[in-house]
Amino acid sequence: MKIPILRLDRVLLVSIQADLSDNDAMEFQSDLVTRVAEVEALGVAIDITALDVVDSYMARVINDTASMVRLLGAEVVICGVQPFVALTLVEMGRDLLGADCTFNLGEGLALLRQRIAKRGDVRFTEDEDV
Amino acid sequence: MKIPILRLDRVLLVSIQADLSDNDAMEFQSDLVTRVAEVEALGVAIDITALDVVDSYMARVINDTASMVRLLGAEVVICGVQPFVALTLVEMGRDLLGADCTFNLGEGLALLRQRIAKRGDVRFTEDEDV
Repeated sequence: MKIPILRLDRVLLVSIQADLSDNDAMEFQSDLVTRVAEVEALGVAIDITALDVVDSYMARVINDTASMVRLLGAEVVICGVQPFVALTLVEMGRDLLGADCTFNLGEGLALLRQRIAKRGDVRFTEDEDV
Repeated sequence: MKIPILRLDRVLLVSIQADLSDNDAMEFQSDLVTRVAEVEALGVAIDITALDVVDSYMARVINDTASMVRLLGAEVVICGVQPFVALTLVEMGRDLLGADCTFNLGEGLALLRQRIAKRGDVRFTEDEDV
């Protein structure tokens, strides 16, 4: 199962619809980092609205993916964590560390845009100082 | 192969990544119309950037899907028709009739928003007349 990566200008959208096998997860991560580098993405929104259950393996996959993307220099937002997923993730003693969550994809994109704009401001200010 | 349907407020995004079998196409179409009705979507962007080849069967599937969505009352835009696809579609004597195309998903969303806003204006004006 290949996870489609949609491009919206310099933001990428991915929607995980089902549990991934080891191979699927690796393929997904390599596809995504390649794509991020290729389009020099400024942000990635990972939509997990369709996941009714997130076990510790899937939580790790999502977490690792977010870390990889951040290493490349892009912002990450996780969208659509279901109430029951939130409950079990915390009960399992894990949360989706280090990545901010939003209620849905629309709000995720808004947050990414805000962050990207903020970064742009910082860059601009630093340039001025030089 | 299940085609993910992403929701961005009242706009749905779908990305077709590969040729669909008869069954896949039927499942996709029924998923999409269900989803459009469920969220009362105002627009649907069908992204075919990943398709390097569109044969007459796939062209018909895309066309039919667009017609179904329009029947439900939503706007449709087809995004990312590749140059070679455009060439072969016209050579085959078919084009993606009735649906407007945009260069990429970002422009597709912009076009949908514009159309939806225009509709809103019309509705508003009609309401005023009553």
